[in-house]
Amino acid sequence: MNKKNLADRLLEAIDDKKNPSVVGLDPRINRIPDHIKEEAGDRAKTPFEAVRYSFEEFNKSIIDEIKDIVPAVKPQVAFYEQYGSHGIRAFEETIDYAKDKGLIVISDVKRNDIGSTAKAYAAAHLGEVERINKEFTYSFDSDMVTVNAYLGTDGVEPFLDVCKKYGKGIFVLVKTSNPSSGELQDKEIKGEGKVYELMGELVKEWGEDLVGNRGYSSVGAVIGATYPKEAEKLREMMKKAIFLVPGYGAQGGTADDIIPCFNDDGYGGIVNSSRGVIFAYEREPYSEKYGDENFAKASGQAALDMKTDIRKSLEKGKKVPEGW
Amino acid sequence: MNKKNLADRLLEAIDDKKNPSVVGLDPRINRIPDHIKEEAGDRAKTPFEAVRYSFEEFNKSIIDEIKDIVPAVKPQVAFYEQYGSHGIRAFEETIDYAKDKGLIVISDVKRNDIGSTAKAYAAAHLGEVERINKEFTYSFDSDMVTVNAYLGTDGVEPFLDVCKKYGKGIFVLVKTSNPSSGELQDKEIKGEGKVYELMGELVKEWGEDLVGNRGYSSVGAVIGATYPKEAEKLREMMKKAIFLVPGYGAQGGTADDIIPCFNDDGYGGIVNSSRGVIFAYEREPYSEKYGDENFAKASGQAALDMKTDIRKSLEKGKKVPEGW
Repeated sequence: MNKKNLADRLLEAIDDKKNPSVVGLDPRINRIPDHIKEEAGDRAKTPFEAVRYSFEEFNKSIIDEIKDIVPAVKPQVAFYEQYGSHGIRAFEETIDYAKDKGLIVISDVKRNDIGSTAKAYAAAHLGEVERINKEFTYSFDSDMVTVNAYLGTDGVEPFLDVCKKYGKGIFVLVKTSNPSSGELQDKEIKGEGKVYELMGELVKEWGEDLVGNRGYSSVGAVIGATYPKEAEKLREMMKKAIFLVPGYGAQGGTADDIIPCFNDDGYGGIVNSSRGVIFAYEREPYSEKYGDENFAKASGQAALDMKTDIRKSLEKGKKVPEGW
Repeated sequence: MNKKNLADRLLEAIDDKKNPSVVGLDPRINRIPDHIKEEAGDRAKTPFEAVRYSFEEFNKSIIDEIKDIVPAVKPQVAFYEQYGSHGIRAFEETIDYAKDKGLIVISDVKRNDIGSTAKAYAAAHLGEVERINKEFTYSFDSDMVTVNAYLGTDGVEPFLDVCKKYGKGIFVLVKTSNPSSGELQDKEIKGEGKVYELMGELVKEWGEDLVGNRGYSSVGAVIGATYPKEAEKLREMMKKAIFLVPGYGAQGGTADDIIPCFNDDGYGGIVNSSRGVIFAYEREPYSEKYGDENFAKASGQAALDMKTDIRKSLEKGKKVPEGW
């Protein structure tokens, strides 16, 4: 109880690593090096169990290499959920391992439902679940989750409640990074701006009671790096929100594109790269130097390179925070 | 491959049971009868495993009683996900058992993401997953899922692809049953009606290639029973869409409220009740007659009563299909 505000914890972790970036842990079985899959296959009784062990080994190796470079990791649950309960076991293991290594864990789940059901999701991912005895009360126990708010406030409130009670946070989808995000999100609502602006206003309201000592709220927003103009407008509107910024790297967003997501003080954004970091070993310049065997070291180097890129862009476009 | 169109299969199942309703399998551990929990506790090695066995036993008992009454069941994944991989194990077991008993399974997952990730969700819940050998290719293998389309077409397309390939279907959130659904969904977009109408138009487009022999599409819409006026407008717009109608019973929607969700021929709607059926044993008039021990029989009776209610409303407000 009475845990520290999540936004404060996240900013502290960002300062500690001097790096506002996060690595997306989105494993895909056909892109995991063969030696890992072979070893997992030897231990496993079923193909799905082999996937589980492969994901765990792959993720743990990468976490070991990036734990001193990035403040947070972001596992995307879909890639685990694909393999049913075995995949979810790997998701649980990944979260536990990352937390043990001092990383903040942002579970990218994009959950959403009516209030009574949203309460179950919030309990599952951030809080305590209903239990039949007192021994085992937490389920995933991530630090933050992503939330889709198409259903409005009563689908978000259960998440806010657990954020307050357990010192957790959420990122609400506002302007997503994908090509067709504008089909709904860019529509102009009579007298209230675009749909993403309305969502931005709602995020501000939801976050008001969760602002920490550093002036940022534990209720942040997902804003795609692929839409820098929209990000600029939203940044202006939502000074206290931390933006989780996907779309950098594999989706086409550049380090310069992410600049509008930051405030003038150099804070307020946390940039995600998934495939670009975890599968760095597959591509130049990393593949030649590291190869399959040292895939995790390639990820470490790619994470460092991303840190450098973001720093350069901050220097050029906004400001590098004091002491970094 | 080349499986039968899902909408055709669903309408056939509805005709077979003469009943356009679905039972939501949303177990909550504190509402499951003690004798089930005690037995599960004896078998289990951990509290979460006890929850898993409790959910499985509870659901299977109810499925046995309702399998000849309703065409479909709708497990809400949040209630399983709460208990991590153990809960997901119960979710898998429930889906398999219901399909074995000839029921159509609608997984209420409300998943959503950018295209490459939506592809993983679609594969997980409706299609085949990437595999490391050929033996174990399906994960959940439900018949239908619910989808949140805040991200637009490219987040929905992967679901459409699996629907075509595997004879599956989806219900897209259009106008949800919860009190604050209007915060975004009722907003008026310049020249395009309300947000839920825009979403309705998109659902129509997405469903065009998936219309079956009976004239309905495998791409349906979620329309809350709690908003009959909006349902009427959407019904007019989207003749070929099947509406999944939550909100009946525990959420306050009455049998009359669901009438606007049906077309004049008496088809086009499938009404969900979760708590009202699965926890019927807790309340009058079922509790006195059945008690804890016969909780599943209470659910069977509640499912029959719901069928009668809907039939009466159809008689009064629309039409009872030929042969029912």
